[in-house]
Amino acid sequence: MNSISWIGMAAAFCTTCAFVPQVLHILRTGNVEGISLGMYSIFTLGVLLWLIYGLALSDLPIILANGITLMLATTVLGLTLHKKRQQR
Amino acid sequence: MNSISWIGMAAAFCTTCAFVPQVLHILRTGNVEGISLGMYSIFTLGVLLWLIYGLALSDLPIILANGITLMLATTVLGLTLHKKRQQR
Repeated sequence: MNSISWIGMAAAFCTTCAFVPQVLHILRTGNVEGISLGMYSIFTLGVLLWLIYGLALSDLPIILANGITLMLATTVLGLTLHKKRQQR
Repeated sequence: MNSISWIGMAAAFCTTCAFVPQVLHILRTGNVEGISLGMYSIFTLGVLLWLIYGLALSDLPIILANGITLMLATTVLGLTLHKKRQQR
């Protein structure tokens, strides 16, 4: 792998794993007040489309990165919806 | 453009524009309590790496999508840092 590929791999790693601290933050504090439901709705739809795009092209890096991000973003969306309903 | 390219364009549009409602949510409510600073730190670094990757490959769609996302994610990160400091 050349250095450009490594930059791409590091980029995919960061934008995928970034959602782990957000999931942990919600589980630890239960606070979702500042989180925009609109953001996670649009973002989760976008990641699902990226996954479909990767599957259509049989591109494993796109499938892997977006498959993991989809699970994490769906978890944030689900937890946020759940907590916002509880707080009403 | 074929239908697969359109799916990719829609995916890029969603994952880029998703941060607009988050920026508006913070500006409107001033509430950033539920937002993970760790998430936005890692995510912003990842988007910056995607931008460098796009520039290295001279890939305009990657440059455009990540250039805009970088501005939006940096705005969320900056606002969250600022508000969390104020609330201390």
